[in-house]
Amino acid sequence: MKKGTNAYSGEHVQEKLDWLGAFGKDPNGGVSRVLYSEEWVEAQNALKALFEDAGLTTHFDDIGNLFGQLKGSTYPDETILTGSHVDTVKNGGLYDGQYGIIAGFLALKYLKETYGEPLRNIEVVSMAEEEGSRFPFSFWGSKNIVGDPSTKEVVNMKDFDGIPFEEAMHKAGFDFKQDPENVRKDLKAFVEIHVEQGNVLEKEQKSVGIVSHIAGQRRYTITLDGQANHAGTTPMGYRKDTMNAAARMITTLNDMALEEGDPLVATVGKIMLEPNTVNVVPGKATFTIDIRHTEKAKLHSFTESVEDMLRRVAKEIDVEIDIDRWMDAPPVPMDEGVVNAIKAQCDEDGLDYKLMHSGAGHDSQIMAPVIPTAMIFVPSKDGISHSPHEYTTPHDLAAGVDALISALYNLGYKE
Amino acid sequence: MKKGTNAYSGEHVQEKLDWLGAFGKDPNGGVSRVLYSEEWVEAQNALKALFEDAGLTTHFDDIGNLFGQLKGSTYPDETILTGSHVDTVKNGGLYDGQYGIIAGFLALKYLKETYGEPLRNIEVVSMAEEEGSRFPFSFWGSKNIVGDPSTKEVVNMKDFDGIPFEEAMHKAGFDFKQDPENVRKDLKAFVEIHVEQGNVLEKEQKSVGIVSHIAGQRRYTITLDGQANHAGTTPMGYRKDTMNAAARMITTLNDMALEEGDPLVATVGKIMLEPNTVNVVPGKATFTIDIRHTEKAKLHSFTESVEDMLRRVAKEIDVEIDIDRWMDAPPVPMDEGVVNAIKAQCDEDGLDYKLMHSGAGHDSQIMAPVIPTAMIFVPSKDGISHSPHEYTTPHDLAAGVDALISALYNLGYKE
Repeated sequence: MKKGTNAYSGEHVQEKLDWLGAFGKDPNGGVSRVLYSEEWVEAQNALKALFEDAGLTTHFDDIGNLFGQLKGSTYPDETILTGSHVDTVKNGGLYDGQYGIIAGFLALKYLKETYGEPLRNIEVVSMAEEEGSRFPFSFWGSKNIVGDPSTKEVVNMKDFDGIPFEEAMHKAGFDFKQDPENVRKDLKAFVEIHVEQGNVLEKEQKSVGIVSHIAGQRRYTITLDGQANHAGTTPMGYRKDTMNAAARMITTLNDMALEEGDPLVATVGKIMLEPNTVNVVPGKATFTIDIRHTEKAKLHSFTESVEDMLRRVAKEIDVEIDIDRWMDAPPVPMDEGVVNAIKAQCDEDGLDYKLMHSGAGHDSQIMAPVIPTAMIFVPSKDGISHSPHEYTTPHDLAAGVDALISALYNLGYKE
Repeated sequence: MKKGTNAYSGEHVQEKLDWLGAFGKDPNGGVSRVLYSEEWVEAQNALKALFEDAGLTTHFDDIGNLFGQLKGSTYPDETILTGSHVDTVKNGGLYDGQYGIIAGFLALKYLKETYGEPLRNIEVVSMAEEEGSRFPFSFWGSKNIVGDPSTKEVVNMKDFDGIPFEEAMHKAGFDFKQDPENVRKDLKAFVEIHVEQGNVLEKEQKSVGIVSHIAGQRRYTITLDGQANHAGTTPMGYRKDTMNAAARMITTLNDMALEEGDPLVATVGKIMLEPNTVNVVPGKATFTIDIRHTEKAKLHSFTESVEDMLRRVAKEIDVEIDIDRWMDAPPVPMDEGVVNAIKAQCDEDGLDYKLMHSGAGHDSQIMAPVIPTAMIFVPSKDGISHSPHEYTTPHDLAAGVDALISALYNLGYKE
């Protein structure tokens, strides 16, 4: 029996996303709904009303994560959680975060209407914050759910307008978590559905991905010091040309990444030269490197080879090099049990999917070390995200909800 | 007999440079003396007085080039010209341009005092403008001397403060050339002495260079259009990465330039990415290429190979390319007769020199097609120019004046 096939039309899902996206609709395009803003408060209150209208029991936690519960009959101390973050980047899209909340809500509504009470509680959560777009702190919602001690770091933070974190939080009606490191004992699984923000599903023409790992990443800033010289009067052999050195490093990095192959990715997204003038050999070059892999050992061995290569090329071209590794986030595996439960149910229900990894960060990577966690992806047109051009087809929106229904059915209704 | 060996101490030459550099001394460093500014007028008037005190006959031409003449006894219709430009870039050094005027003046003074009247007139010129630092027009001084019709282009030009060219010129007491394309018939040779603005003489420990060619140059702006993508979620094989494409192009360009060897130089001095963010594959890259060679055929064949290479790499990496060649200045050979006269006299006088080319542009390249022209170089410390850190040692300053004295003796005093 197919659990959720065609539970909703894609147009219906899109309609709900349009409705939620109206809270924070930005005259400059897309949705701007940063943590604890007026639009954010309105969105959370509107979701609360939506959840209650569908017969879910709602509550906010201390910091403003909103929960809607479908009560279980048999295991009152066991809860299956789904959902995502309600905040957006500035001029964000209609799908990032939002889709995980709307899909979660629609899945609970369908399950309740179709199968009645589950064995375990099933909850949908609209998490307070993930993007780090207002304050220099990300995953505020999920980090509070799992009692991450780093949440204390926000105390002295201010937003771009100089408003302190605490003041913004109080104004929205919330406060710090009473017992910051406490974690609810009933949370047995977390399943987040999210747009891929990449182009793998689209390229492979799959509507659903089941995520096995979230990639770890190391980020670097590389600074090269050579010598600024006249482009006309300095023979090639007398140069300490940092653009030439950077170009050789970036070419070799790309060759190494292609040779290593998926799931490794390596990107130079930013470069700046000094003086950056057509007729001067650049005396200084600064560029970034972003390297990701799903396996910690491979991430480490690859980045170590890259660091060696950078030093070797710098020596060859006779420029000074500074290698600053300023981010080192380990890969996060999803829970095998939850992943297998979702796969099994999708197989049983005849739903097609691709087992894949996430190259982007998500609340699930915060949840996974504490709660058995898995993720479901739907395609992003052209891989575009964090943009008003973010788009997922109605067909894929509906397929994602179907897969989530299957997943939650397996976890919540089965012994 | 050595004509000018130790004619002056280097300290004396430096003293004169300091004196001239005081007109336009910039509180932010170096000398700022742009065309027709108050400092420029003061410098030209001070030079006029200096020339007259030494017994030279002076006159300004219509546009403000200042000439100081040592009259010849035998060939009143033949004049040997030396000198350089009196204007500077903003925050320029004490040597660029200035040295050619001071060295020319000191050479004439020494020749007059030591050998009396020459056969031909010898003149020193303090040319109005070369740098293009006030108005978007370069070589205003020399172009007027040779009657270059492009001088008419300045009519509608304004400086950064919105002051029209004509207004600035009138305020300084000058006007357009009455007969713009007229050229003095008496000019038989032009010898410009200038700082190298490169590091070849310094590296090879030579105090004097005799220039055989001024390099031609082609300048390009290359624009690559790929696809901006998430650095974490876009597998290497699905990218259209313009930074990767640019890096491969720049690496190959450098390899090609090294293989071609001197006097070819190729430089990528400027690059800009969009969006230029650590975690986004750059969708757009724009960079410049500056390629120079002393031989037109080699400049053309090399740049054509580069253009082919750029298109080939763009195709391989699957990005769109636009190649904009916005400068194409042919190489300018110096006059063989004048070069040989200088070489012969230096040999006779026991002066050491290096025969070389100029990678930078100079007034001599404007003069050369009309007047038999040659250049003498002295070293620039670390190749630095257009900077308050521009420096030439007293020893090399004196050696340059000695070489110029030899050159002018040969051209002005010999049958």
